[in-house]
Amino acid sequence: MTYQEVLEQARGAMGPYCKACPVCNGLACRNTVPGPGAKGIGTGFIRNYQKWQELCVNMDTICENKPVDTSFTLFGRTVDLPVFAAPVGAMTLHYGDKYNDLAYNDILVAACAEAGIAAFTGDGTDPAVMEGAAAAIAKNGGCGVPTVKPWNLETIRQKMDLVKAADPFAIAMDIDAAGLPFLKGLNPPAGSKTVSELREIIEYVKVPFIIKGIMTVKGAQKALEAGAAGIVVSNHGGRVQDGVPATASVLPAITQAVKGQMVVLVDGGIRTGVDVCKALALGADACILARPYVTAVYGGQAEGVKVLTDKLKGELQDTMAMCGVHSLSEISGDMIFRG
Amino acid sequence: MTYQEVLEQARGAMGPYCKACPVCNGLACRNTVPGPGAKGIGTGFIRNYQKWQELCVNMDTICENKPVDTSFTLFGRTVDLPVFAAPVGAMTLHYGDKYNDLAYNDILVAACAEAGIAAFTGDGTDPAVMEGAAAAIAKNGGCGVPTVKPWNLETIRQKMDLVKAADPFAIAMDIDAAGLPFLKGLNPPAGSKTVSELREIIEYVKVPFIIKGIMTVKGAQKALEAGAAGIVVSNHGGRVQDGVPATASVLPAITQAVKGQMVVLVDGGIRTGVDVCKALALGADACILARPYVTAVYGGQAEGVKVLTDKLKGELQDTMAMCGVHSLSEISGDMIFRG
Amino acid sequence: MTYQEVLEQARGAMGPYCKACPVCNGLACRNTVPGPGAKGIGTGFIRNYQKWQELCVNMDTICENKPVDTSFTLFGRTVDLPVFAAPVGAMTLHYGDKYNDLAYNDILVAACAEAGIAAFTGDGTDPAVMEGAAAAIAKNGGCGVPTVKPWNLETIRQKMDLVKAADPFAIAMDIDAAGLPFLKGLNPPAGSKTVSELREIIEYVKVPFIIKGIMTVKGAQKALEAGAAGIVVSNHGGRVQDGVPATASVLPAITQAVKGQMVVLVDGGIRTGVDVCKALALGADACILARPYVTAVYGGQAEGVKVLTDKLKGELQDTMAMCGVHSLSEISGDMIFRG
Amino acid sequence: MTYQEVLEQARGAMGPYCKACPVCNGLACRNTVPGPGAKGIGTGFIRNYQKWQELCVNMDTICENKPVDTSFTLFGRTVDLPVFAAPVGAMTLHYGDKYNDLAYNDILVAACAEAGIAAFTGDGTDPAVMEGAAAAIAKNGGCGVPTVKPWNLETIRQKMDLVKAADPFAIAMDIDAAGLPFLKGLNPPAGSKTVSELREIIEYVKVPFIIKGIMTVKGAQKALEAGAAGIVVSNHGGRVQDGVPATASVLPAITQAVKGQMVVLVDGGIRTGVDVCKALALGADACILARPYVTAVYGGQAEGVKVLTDKLKGELQDTMAMCGVHSLSEISGDMIFRG
Repeated sequence: MTYQEVLEQARGAMGPYCKACPVCNGLACRNTVPGPGAKGIGTGFIRNYQKWQELCVNMDTICENKPVDTSFTLFGRTVDLPVFAAPVGAMTLHYGDKYNDLAYNDILVAACAEAGIAAFTGDGTDPAVMEGAAAAIAKNGGCGVPTVKPWNLETIRQKMDLVKAADPFAIAMDIDAAGLPFLKGLNPPAGSKTVSELREIIEYVKVPFIIKGIMTVKGAQKALEAGAAGIVVSNHGGRVQDGVPATASVLPAITQAVKGQMVVLVDGGIRTGVDVCKALALGADACILARPYVTAVYGGQAEGVKVLTDKLKGELQDTMAMCGVHSLSEISGDMIFRG
Repeated sequence: MTYQEVLEQARGAMGPYCKACPVCNGLACRNTVPGPGAKGIGTGFIRNYQKWQELCVNMDTICENKPVDTSFTLFGRTVDLPVFAAPVGAMTLHYGDKYNDLAYNDILVAACAEAGIAAFTGDGTDPAVMEGAAAAIAKNGGCGVPTVKPWNLETIRQKMDLVKAADPFAIAMDIDAAGLPFLKGLNPPAGSKTVSELREIIEYVKVPFIIKGIMTVKGAQKALEAGAAGIVVSNHGGRVQDGVPATASVLPAITQAVKGQMVVLVDGGIRTGVDVCKALALGADACILARPYVTAVYGGQAEGVKVLTDKLKGELQDTMAMCGVHSLSEISGDMIFRG
Repeated sequence: MTYQEVLEQARGAMGPYCKACPVCNGLACRNTVPGPGAKGIGTGFIRNYQKWQELCVNMDTICENKPVDTSFTLFGRTVDLPVFAAPVGAMTLHYGDKYNDLAYNDILVAACAEAGIAAFTGDGTDPAVMEGAAAAIAKNGGCGVPTVKPWNLETIRQKMDLVKAADPFAIAMDIDAAGLPFLKGLNPPAGSKTVSELREIIEYVKVPFIIKGIMTVKGAQKALEAGAAGIVVSNHGGRVQDGVPATASVLPAITQAVKGQMVVLVDGGIRTGVDVCKALALGADACILARPYVTAVYGGQAEGVKVLTDKLKGELQDTMAMCGVHSLSEISGDMIFRG
Repeated sequence: MTYQEVLEQARGAMGPYCKACPVCNGLACRNTVPGPGAKGIGTGFIRNYQKWQELCVNMDTICENKPVDTSFTLFGRTVDLPVFAAPVGAMTLHYGDKYNDLAYNDILVAACAEAGIAAFTGDGTDPAVMEGAAAAIAKNGGCGVPTVKPWNLETIRQKMDLVKAADPFAIAMDIDAAGLPFLKGLNPPAGSKTVSELREIIEYVKVPFIIKGIMTVKGAQKALEAGAAGIVVSNHGGRVQDGVPATASVLPAITQAVKGQMVVLVDGGIRTGVDVCKALALGADACILARPYVTAVYGGQAEGVKVLTDKLKGELQDTMAMCGVHSLSEISGDMIFRG
């Protein structure tokens, strides 16, 4: 199965909103929520994608001809490349009847583990979603990052107990989910958390904790103060707020501010191994991809996930080779062309 | 009634020129005057809209989860959100036969008061227009800002006497109306005013006076010197002069120059509560929307106005929550992303 | 006759290449030479037009309400507004059979004089063209600027003798015509001139001499050194060289360098009185329009020229009024919005 | 035969991918590899083209009227203009059945020599390709630059022996070919080379050696250290890596860094003599064009090559004349307009 075939299989199978476009750039879906689009008039998603395209890499063609190593270790877990599949939820709402949250997470967690990476899993108001995710992660030797929404503290504590039992190498919370239009007024209620509330949760969890949805240096510092082991620089693909900067635009200042003190992941508009290389050159430790992995699952289940992951790895390897670096630790800001 | 339905109802009901576009950005109507377009080749309207889209907000997702208060007080009158409907006139000329100026103002003033905001009312060569506006404002407990065109001083004095009797919380003058193509050569004659002429008018009026149509620091300082209580940073939606900067482009320098000395409102291309939040972050006290309220009235009368206002309020609340601020006074320039 | 009707009449009457587009911006005709387009891939014309659109004016709406005076005096000749019609030649080649050079110049010179401005006249390899132009200028009391191509010195001297007899208020040379594709290899031969060759010509002429086709400070200084009374900042509408900057881009440095020492005119993409006002704000003394006057002649002969000129004058007056200036001498660089 | 006719003849004759577009700018072919497109989503090709279009030249119209000399000498070989045809290979893969590598090189080398320039020749896994190229160069008096791919050292040595016998005035290596998707896993294997490996090759060759595929100052300095006589600033037309800067963007820093120490050629998106002049103004010694010469061969064989070369020469002459320079040595950075 080629990546082209994955896309073709996905078309028509992703509900009424997502077209599995040749280039997933936020233009065709714009403001379709429910659906894969972004909030408001959809500028967040579009900007995310475009900013990566504006960045250029410096080739270094005179160098040793040797293999490129893309392996990456996060909190003791080593993956083949610095890429993770994102947590996605409310699958039937956004992507039609083919998979519900349980089925999707079940396919994704196993497929990512087989493909040499790991998946973040989504959450939902139905407790069965997180139960299924925890089971899938447990079944795959802890290879997955359960991502809990910012519910009230009691609900969080219950979910934390549940997912810790799956022995994941990290647990995450998408703190910005309070802005999701379809989460409004649901039960249990979700909402922002203060530094002290987060600290309480993190101390309770005792597993490396990742806060997803940080877009400023100030936010990163709060996450650090709360005791997070890592953050995801993310605007939730533009789905929690319109008129936000691209993640690639805010990433450099954030990585510089918290360098060496916590892990920095980034998502938003990352589509190829070239983009992954650029993100690492801007200081990120690894990348998270959401919509491409959704399309991969709908277009080819486990095989789709493998095809996409292999494509990303190949592009990352090629880019590193053409830029004269052979391991992730050699990637630096010098690789980005500055006007 | 949803906002989508308001737009659909408005389509076909707004005369031969306005299409009630899904996004009201000046591209489809360009230089249609008469009609909703802008003067010359229509760059003023287009620029106004686009500049807000270029601005991005900084999310602050780690914060207390508490209600957002959008209430705003202007010259003693408190409204639910810092938004006003703009003065619009010559309705049949620009928007067809459905409503004349009297009917439009009558619907708008009451609908805005019911929706928790207030309307500015338009003026016309026919004295009945301002008489009707004054009556509508009086009927709604002074909840409205009559806006008088810059006629000759005698006409202005008559109109001021008329509108003061309605006990509005402010009176405005669109000083830039001298540039409206369709006002040329009409009777009574309209034209620019000097600082001393404006001072004379303002001293006569003895009600908080707002000068609309200021695009430079120099202009704001003249308004201050004339004794105005407030200004509207406005290029009249691009309708008085082609080739003008966006209001969002000139706003920051103006708000900084007159900070604390007068109220600064802004209009031009503001379409969502996200835009309202950006305008306040640039130093404005509140926003005025023109074309969206016209469409709301034509598409749903009072209910259309309510639907639009609720939409704006929701978007403003969401944006403030995602940016970690919970009252208008917490909004600052730090909320705008600077490259 | 309205300007819209002039355009409609012109459509279909301007040969196979010119479409008399609603907006004459170089996009539809791109690289049509012969025809109204520009050389190469046509970027020169497009850039000229676009740069004026990028510039914005600062409104000054609080000012005295008094008439605006647009009158302009050049070398003793006073015109109603600082606008001239450009020299255009080879009419049948570029614009079809309707008018040859003689007929075109004959209509244009008289029509411009009647409309309150003056025309520059074009030149051709056929001596009858300049003879006709000289006759037309003489018939209209010297109201015209014969523009001689940079032929060999002997031809120039003959043409100068001829046109001086028409008693024009100035004589011009389009020094950049050497780059016109269709002039290559014709007889008499045309080509660049040195400072000393130009000085010799200028001293021979003894009439205020204008060098057209200057795009740099260095070029302006050479013109000054040669004794020119004026220059036209011009890239010949993009027709002599592809890949040139917009005239509006190079104008400010040039006007600043030769300020007070010579007259500076400018052409290239100027379409409205708003553009004229911007050009003056950048330091130009007056503007020259080429393609719009061609369209005006083909669409309405003398009446077309009058309609266009009145439109330009009205736009210039409106812009000046909205910017708070009432005579050309009050226009300054402060009128341009600087980011 | 006109250039227009060359393009028309080429259309339909260039395989399933190349459309011989009126403007060859990377938009229609984007990511078609095999085919004439670029790697990934094809931004490298598009950027190359666009950057030249952004650059503007300063006209200098007051100057001596004398002939323009475009002749250029490289390593003792004088050509009519500073332009070379690029090495291209795998013709049937990318451009269909009309010509294989041998036939293409055979036509190109002779045609370029006749047209007054010289061709670089491509390489392939089949040894016959380089044998044919060497024979063609020998037959044309050494007028050609055989370009060897970065194979393993043994293969390179054999190919060097072969091509030296043709007595070319220079030998090149496209060091960046390691990134070509279709070269992966072929035999002999190709890959990057270190400075010391290149030095060994260069010392072995004893003919002026050109390294093609340099995009940074660091890369140019490595080439210099390895003993190269020249470099080609090139991203292989975007075909070895996506997300690279335009060659015109990186050229100035590179030419400045190695000025006077080695020859600097440049390729990528150069389409006209105006572009050639801009490249020289940025410090390049000469230009290489790939796709246009492919189209010329497919559309008109030797005559097509002559027509394209004459067109480039005429455009270069015109541009130099309009900019007031009459030999290549007079071209300088002052010719580029700086905002």
